[in-house]
Amino acid sequence: MEKSEPAHQSDHYFTDEERAAVYKSIYSRRDVRGQFKTDPVPDDVLARIINAAHHAPSVGFMQPWNFLLIQNPETKKKVHDIFLSANDEAAEMFEPEKSTDYRKLKLEGIIESPVNLVVTCDRERAGPVVVGRTHDKSMDLFSSVCAVQNLWLAARAEGVGVGWVSIFNKKALKQALKLPKSVTPIAYLCIGYVEHFLAEPELKSAGWRDRLPIEDLVCFDEWGNMNKEGNEGLYKELSKR
Amino acid sequence: MEKSEPAHQSDHYFTDEERAAVYKSIYSRRDVRGQFKTDPVPDDVLARIINAAHHAPSVGFMQPWNFLLIQNPETKKKVHDIFLSANDEAAEMFEPEKSTDYRKLKLEGIIESPVNLVVTCDRERAGPVVVGRTHDKSMDLFSSVCAVQNLWLAARAEGVGVGWVSIFNKKALKQALKLPKSVTPIAYLCIGYVEHFLAEPELKSAGWRDRLPIEDLVCFDEWGNMNKEGNEGLYKELSKR
Repeated sequence: MEKSEPAHQSDHYFTDEERAAVYKSIYSRRDVRGQFKTDPVPDDVLARIINAAHHAPSVGFMQPWNFLLIQNPETKKKVHDIFLSANDEAAEMFEPEKSTDYRKLKLEGIIESPVNLVVTCDRERAGPVVVGRTHDKSMDLFSSVCAVQNLWLAARAEGVGVGWVSIFNKKALKQALKLPKSVTPIAYLCIGYVEHFLAEPELKSAGWRDRLPIEDLVCFDEWGNMNKEGNEGLYKELSKR
Repeated sequence: MEKSEPAHQSDHYFTDEERAAVYKSIYSRRDVRGQFKTDPVPDDVLARIINAAHHAPSVGFMQPWNFLLIQNPETKKKVHDIFLSANDEAAEMFEPEKSTDYRKLKLEGIIESPVNLVVTCDRERAGPVVVGRTHDKSMDLFSSVCAVQNLWLAARAEGVGVGWVSIFNKKALKQALKLPKSVTPIAYLCIGYVEHFLAEPELKSAGWRDRLPIEDLVCFDEWGNMNKEGNEGLYKELSKR
């Protein structure tokens, strides 16, 4: 089957201002747990951030995601209970001193945020053999994660906060949302307008962990080769942030 | 330990132009395989997109990623050979007719792209118990995927193309890059300036798969509840893209 040459994008370049806006969304995005306002998120805003997610990359163009919107207070309560019980288990896993600190962390906004949204992955979306997924079966999960990150950045640009809650017994969550066997919940997101966005990640401000120096995370051609010779220029630029 | 109230962001809002730029990066990003130019990517650009990745969300602020830059032609050749052998295996997995079509697809730009970059995940980065990873051990992998998506969008804003190659025998790839046992390669990325960005995803233009209608992917409160009653506004907005 002969194909004509596929069309190109006419808008190849970003202006400096456009480029800066993309970085602004990346650097100002936060995992929001505690600053939600109850104001509803308008349909047009919600639709735009869901469509942003839908335009994420996906392995073999599989688009394995679904978007389950939760606004019913009873469903939220059910999910919140599942969180509470898992969070108790989680607290017990830390050493005694850390455990006390852990219990002080606010890790979700399920009830307060006006919209909860579950991004899922249907592992059977595109049949048994998928381009690009033949040698790594996790690639479909990763596609759904890319959708989450698109949504998160779009939401920040809309002034909307998003928090990813991951402390659940997965079986209980699947049951509460009636997900079929082939569908995995990837991200349970709490979404809403916020009083403010924090300047720094909460776990950083709480003294839980620091941001790692980027120059310790870059290596060359093989693991552990951090020879800076010949790469002075890159290291200098990396340290500018 | 008492903490003072953490600082807020002074720049809460995005202008309409800034918001549009974020969506522009999301909608114009492509998985690039075939349009790479050999021009080097300057250090400042490379540093900016790596720093964008480093500012992705991560479970428990774990920052499990490393960035392995591959520019040595011998290493690229070794990785390309690993791709070729996996891609032959992949082609055999499809039905005969699909298999012929599959072999026509260009799925990587390892040799032509000036920079290859591997984003990894160190599964032991933050000790045995990590906030938010107690009930889903994959959360660290997902954090590294968020880093990839940040990098991808930043690169698009820089006019730089990125392609994610996933067809490898993982053991062989780890060995070629000398990754330690605890470190998993998440994404093997081909990076470089491009002749053009395609208007549509390549698998769509090639007739391999179509974009799914977004209204089939949204449901309410539980799986399969696609009752549009009461949600007309959202469906109308979703269809606007």
